[in-house]
Amino acid sequence: MKGFQIDPQLLADCHAIGKFGFCFVLLHRNAAVPWFILVPETGVTDLLELADDMQARALQESRTIAKFIKAELGFPKINFAAIGNVVPQLHLHVVGRKPDDPCWPAPVWGRLAEGCAYNQERIAEITRMLNQTCGLRSV
Amino acid sequence: MKGFQIDPQLLADCHAIGKFGFCFVLLHRNAAVPWFILVPETGVTDLLELADDMQARALQESRTIAKFIKAELGFPKINFAAIGNVVPQLHLHVVGRKPDDPCWPAPVWGRLAEGCAYNQERIAEITRMLNQTCGLRSV
Repeated sequence: MKGFQIDPQLLADCHAIGKFGFCFVLLHRNAAVPWFILVPETGVTDLLELADDMQARALQESRTIAKFIKAELGFPKINFAAIGNVVPQLHLHVVGRKPDDPCWPAPVWGRLAEGCAYNQERIAEITRMLNQTCGLRSV
Repeated sequence: MKGFQIDPQLLADCHAIGKFGFCFVLLHRNAAVPWFILVPETGVTDLLELADDMQARALQESRTIAKFIKAELGFPKINFAAIGNVVPQLHLHVVGRKPDDPCWPAPVWGRLAEGCAYNQERIAEITRMLNQTCGLRSV
């Protein structure tokens, strides 16, 4: 989409690690749980107002991340949400959870203490795995 | 689905007001915001693991509720989530939000003070509107 830009607040909160066919893929800076944010390349702000084909693509790409979280990162449960009260640009949270994670069973939003960050090596590793197994491409 | 039962915790938290083709429709007892919970009639626990056709139906029925919240209840923003950390049975939150609601911009989960309840008349009215305009049927 010509002129599409990811909201600066999302870029401040996350590492931008690449793109699928429809969604940019961000990794939240808080490394306490694997928290991905997918930003579909659209001006529509509500997931439930996306056209059917675009909604299906966004869900399919979310599913790819969910499978990766379960299979490669060892988190058995996925929390999925489109909230957007603070950042209106449509973005989809795909978050790996497990019963001994730092804020289980509460949702992560506003509940996850700061202070746990990825190092550059781990970001590169996650990006490489997603490139190789899930078709993530760099942008 | 033979023998399907809604989780007792969801029934304790909500008013069961009917069913669409695939999802049971619950209205959260906390009336501070219009908070619907859709329970797809399936044993799958993660939204992103539903078969494509069932996922599309669940999203379509969520969309119906989202439109109703915006058009009839006057809440301009929808928060949509599948969490399930406390109640594993798949259930989809479709929540109407607006900037002057009681916990804006925080998500509602665990943030909404108790004490604001629907009366029976209002529950009946919402149910009737959903019956007439959205094809909700009683169960």
